[in-house]
Amino acid sequence: MIEIGIVGGSGYGAVELIRLLQHHPNVTIKYVFSHSKNDEPISETFPHLSHLILNYTALDEKGVSCDVVFFATPSNVSKHLAPDLVDKGVKVIDLSGDFRLSNRHMYKTFYGEEAAPQQQLDAASYSIAEWSEVDWQHTKLIANPGCFPTSILLALHPLVVQEVIDTESIIIDSKTGVSGAGRSLAQHVHYAEMNENFSAYAIGKHKHKPEIEQYISTLSGKDINVTFTPHLVPMTRGILSTIYVKLNEYTTTEELQAIYKQYYDDKPFVRVRDIGIYPKTKEVYGSNFCDIGIYVDEINQMAIIVSVIDNLVKGASGQAIQNLNLLYGLDETTGLNQLPVYP
Amino acid sequence: MIEIGIVGGSGYGAVELIRLLQHHPNVTIKYVFSHSKNDEPISETFPHLSHLILNYTALDEKGVSCDVVFFATPSNVSKHLAPDLVDKGVKVIDLSGDFRLSNRHMYKTFYGEEAAPQQQLDAASYSIAEWSEVDWQHTKLIANPGCFPTSILLALHPLVVQEVIDTESIIIDSKTGVSGAGRSLAQHVHYAEMNENFSAYAIGKHKHKPEIEQYISTLSGKDINVTFTPHLVPMTRGILSTIYVKLNEYTTTEELQAIYKQYYDDKPFVRVRDIGIYPKTKEVYGSNFCDIGIYVDEINQMAIIVSVIDNLVKGASGQAIQNLNLLYGLDETTGLNQLPVYP
Amino acid sequence: MIEIGIVGGSGYGAVELIRLLQHHPNVTIKYVFSHSKNDEPISETFPHLSHLILNYTALDEKGVSCDVVFFATPSNVSKHLAPDLVDKGVKVIDLSGDFRLSNRHMYKTFYGEEAAPQQQLDAASYSIAEWSEVDWQHTKLIANPGCFPTSILLALHPLVVQEVIDTESIIIDSKTGVSGAGRSLAQHVHYAEMNENFSAYAIGKHKHKPEIEQYISTLSGKDINVTFTPHLVPMTRGILSTIYVKLNEYTTTEELQAIYKQYYDDKPFVRVRDIGIYPKTKEVYGSNFCDIGIYVDEINQMAIIVSVIDNLVKGASGQAIQNLNLLYGLDETTGLNQLPVYP
Amino acid sequence: MIEIGIVGGSGYGAVELIRLLQHHPNVTIKYVFSHSKNDEPISETFPHLSHLILNYTALDEKGVSCDVVFFATPSNVSKHLAPDLVDKGVKVIDLSGDFRLSNRHMYKTFYGEEAAPQQQLDAASYSIAEWSEVDWQHTKLIANPGCFPTSILLALHPLVVQEVIDTESIIIDSKTGVSGAGRSLAQHVHYAEMNENFSAYAIGKHKHKPEIEQYISTLSGKDINVTFTPHLVPMTRGILSTIYVKLNEYTTTEELQAIYKQYYDDKPFVRVRDIGIYPKTKEVYGSNFCDIGIYVDEINQMAIIVSVIDNLVKGASGQAIQNLNLLYGLDETTGLNQLPVYP
Repeated sequence: MIEIGIVGGSGYGAVELIRLLQHHPNVTIKYVFSHSKNDEPISETFPHLSHLILNYTALDEKGVSCDVVFFATPSNVSKHLAPDLVDKGVKVIDLSGDFRLSNRHMYKTFYGEEAAPQQQLDAASYSIAEWSEVDWQHTKLIANPGCFPTSILLALHPLVVQEVIDTESIIIDSKTGVSGAGRSLAQHVHYAEMNENFSAYAIGKHKHKPEIEQYISTLSGKDINVTFTPHLVPMTRGILSTIYVKLNEYTTTEELQAIYKQYYDDKPFVRVRDIGIYPKTKEVYGSNFCDIGIYVDEINQMAIIVSVIDNLVKGASGQAIQNLNLLYGLDETTGLNQLPVYP
Repeated sequence: MIEIGIVGGSGYGAVELIRLLQHHPNVTIKYVFSHSKNDEPISETFPHLSHLILNYTALDEKGVSCDVVFFATPSNVSKHLAPDLVDKGVKVIDLSGDFRLSNRHMYKTFYGEEAAPQQQLDAASYSIAEWSEVDWQHTKLIANPGCFPTSILLALHPLVVQEVIDTESIIIDSKTGVSGAGRSLAQHVHYAEMNENFSAYAIGKHKHKPEIEQYISTLSGKDINVTFTPHLVPMTRGILSTIYVKLNEYTTTEELQAIYKQYYDDKPFVRVRDIGIYPKTKEVYGSNFCDIGIYVDEINQMAIIVSVIDNLVKGASGQAIQNLNLLYGLDETTGLNQLPVYP
Repeated sequence: MIEIGIVGGSGYGAVELIRLLQHHPNVTIKYVFSHSKNDEPISETFPHLSHLILNYTALDEKGVSCDVVFFATPSNVSKHLAPDLVDKGVKVIDLSGDFRLSNRHMYKTFYGEEAAPQQQLDAASYSIAEWSEVDWQHTKLIANPGCFPTSILLALHPLVVQEVIDTESIIIDSKTGVSGAGRSLAQHVHYAEMNENFSAYAIGKHKHKPEIEQYISTLSGKDINVTFTPHLVPMTRGILSTIYVKLNEYTTTEELQAIYKQYYDDKPFVRVRDIGIYPKTKEVYGSNFCDIGIYVDEINQMAIIVSVIDNLVKGASGQAIQNLNLLYGLDETTGLNQLPVYP
Repeated sequence: MIEIGIVGGSGYGAVELIRLLQHHPNVTIKYVFSHSKNDEPISETFPHLSHLILNYTALDEKGVSCDVVFFATPSNVSKHLAPDLVDKGVKVIDLSGDFRLSNRHMYKTFYGEEAAPQQQLDAASYSIAEWSEVDWQHTKLIANPGCFPTSILLALHPLVVQEVIDTESIIIDSKTGVSGAGRSLAQHVHYAEMNENFSAYAIGKHKHKPEIEQYISTLSGKDINVTFTPHLVPMTRGILSTIYVKLNEYTTTEELQAIYKQYYDDKPFVRVRDIGIYPKTKEVYGSNFCDIGIYVDEINQMAIIVSVIDNLVKGASGQAIQNLNLLYGLDETTGLNQLPVYP
């Protein structure tokens, strides 16, 4: 059994890891780490786990006894703690943004803090699991992608790789459920103000913008700048991204949909909808699926791609487990066969 | 493998059975029956299942080839179809109300239709799984309990059996999420009218009232009439029942909680909260748990019991699988170890 | 024009007063007081008011220049500030709980703080507007009722006054929208945890319990203890109270409904539903109505009364304005003719 | 007093007209017409109006006795009924789409029915109230704009008129609350399926697309094709449109915001947010405001405009009353000074 430790135990990423790993045959959770809640039973923070006999513990030398440590922490935590674990031979899968950007300047601009040293950043492997080019034999630290980027990059990948679109024209309008904001309290996610309310936020300033641009730039070999507007939806889970791109050559909806169908034919977690059908966030609720719908405005030669994920599963803990599977040479679906919870 | 057929394939009970059975090691779903959608792919009705290659089929002679057929139908369906299957040797687990009431007059009063023949009703086995007294060797038709009754009877069972309360004094105030109303369209569950709205309904007339009374009457040996008020909550899943009962003898919260703790100690799906903590519906979301909180108003000598379930799991498809496990002599938790989806 | 000051300007009670007073022909808002936000424009805190040129100001000597000061503050504020204003000739309408309980011991038990001096409590006038017995000529400080008590006392008033029920048997199961918890941040009203969640809270400990008991005790001339369970509903506004009481004499639903119809015939804000129809919270959303539905369980001789209000209007700011109208001898509906916002 | 009739009395547009007109000093509602509910009390359909003594009536010769008739009907109704009223001297304000498009072919393509005769279409006046060029002395039939177009055209107007943008580049990503779908039942707006769900719909096919294009084409003098994607948000009210346009010349956020501020300085219902602040749908809930936020992506020279309205007020009944005020030479704010309901 792979022995797991989870850092950030009082957050949503951690409990989602626990929920999903329940179904994983090759894994055992050894520790759930929480600095602030050391020695407290996890059921005090999360009564939905009240049947589990499991206490939080402080991340100290215990981390080293794990095979793999997941960091389900806010940014600015793992960069201080993960390198030491890696040095001691523990594999790290980081769900935070600390090791996603290779450009230290970009990190500082968008995260407002100093980045990890360049050498550590260079050693980290960013992994959109479906298109991972990670050297699994040698990698020690996986940077698990952000939630918005996952929904966006899976949708854009075929278009960029197959050079179907003008990569200078990418406009992304994303909408996320509120759990993406985490468990920390803030006025704008106070129930009475967030309920029955829809808004745009952080336009031009969101941490995921440089992450998207870095990936598309690498993929296309050009220096790409995207337009990205995140919005907040009055619901708990789910991301829907609507992506607008100019087509390079005349293409019909049928042709474009066929490209996606073929491209994702052997990817078990990506489901391409039939023409005229667009995916809804609830259709992936609680599951590791990314569902995609395609439309071409033939007059404008504009492709509109709609993709949905559960931000806490495919957008965080689910993809982290998928990466764990890849790291251990397991089938990537191991432990991730949960069907969406519907309705 | 136990080969399963599911009748009522276009409803919520059926897709919840499919979701949960995904994790069951001893079961294979052979058919999903739908009269109105014969030959259509299930993914047309439920795009969240779009990766499944599975077509609806009509319930004809195929039903007989199954080991077990679940009826996840509205009332007034199974009573016409189940007896024939039973006669041909198929086990039936009925999630509808058709075989729950042994009193045909009560059925007619509350369901507005003629009941099944008395002989068939007498042969059916009503099974609150935790306290089932079914003769599993010989039973052929299980009447799976209603969602409200499940939340209520698990809460009342210790009080009635241990004769702690005045059974004439039972007042039940229940609140359910909207999925309990099923998938059929109706004005009061139209989103724009149900959202941001809370209401009581069917006071004194709800189909689950005689079901609760029948069970408590049998348990107590007295003819019991309860006061039962259902309410509709603007959320999809979850039932919370608040139950008010007069205590026979002076009892403290501590004493009463201790009774529950002991009573449910060996029941894996019932979790009794610590004193001062009350369960919330989201703490069982998507899982088969029933969580219970206890308070005694010592001045009035009134016990207040709060219980929560997911109406589609423990209140329907989850308990149906639990009964299937009992029927086949499997551990009752087989395939039902999903943790609640939180948040 | 009556010149108004509002203390607690950064809270929901204050903005609801501003919204409603917009339609009041006899009132002008002179100051909106906020200690923490002194000199800030109100639109920074509440962008929905961004067209108003209105800055918060500190409550100092300016309070004295108002005819009436509303306290829309948490408990433990007005008791320190209101008496001085009253002494200087300003009328005070207090939306908080500081002057509602005449029993200082009860205040300490349920509010966890020392109560105001007995003399000040005795001088305050508690006013359920429909049944107010306040000496409006001489009163200087109105204690505006709590939200739960308003929904409950309007429902119980006819039953108690007409001696229809056993006042020892009162069980109240109340459900409130989340805005009742105010604008201060807390984990249980964090959107991701409150959404799709229903729970009971503060059983036996809620501040409104002694307020209900004090009123019913006065009305009935007996020392009354009620059973009261509040619940939290995933919606912003609205309270629904379901009240269970034993009838003294055999009474039908028709008879009881007729009593209510007659009793509230001349009360413009109380609407009694026809038999078999129960009010929903959305049917009073944004308005000052209290709607009531009646059912008698004739076997048990138990009356079930369902009442709904908007907690921020009839349960707070609307009733406060209704009391202001009474104080100034205006028609009680002045400025309060808003229809419910539906859907 | 202006005597009003309202056709479509069982829909949301009608009850919103009733709610708003309650505050209008120059108007009296004479009839609420409903074919299907002739003679029924309105309170049977809408219990939130249960204190009103008002029965539905059939639209027959009574329509002629009104000064103004509002059509709050689905498409394909007013085109059959309004012309006759107009001929008999009644002014008509049509909230449906029947008279919005001057191109009969476009109507047929997007509405799926034959359009009204060209002569009638030509005689109708489309009126975005803020920028209306209607000849109020002579007009007899006002085509009240659609909800999406209102939110979009108020946002685009300054950019097009001042020739700041490339009108070929317009991309509109709109999100609406569910009340926009009306009161008729449909599976996708069934509560259990719509709740906790976000989706795109009718991409390239929405009825409001040609309406937007017609207006911008007229304004710019060019034949404009826009990209328009509507989405459905799990909330009752509110539209937010995010609009992406290429700037013609280098412009900063400050410069663009200044243009908007000046442009809308004398328009009481349009509020332009400060830089870095974006409006939220709840900040206009229940009111006639349209709030706008501006951002310029200076690298891409892309302007992002965010606008919000309440779809049932500024997007329907509120703007209809604003147009009524213009028709009668009243101040356009008459009866429309309701503040947003917050929270």
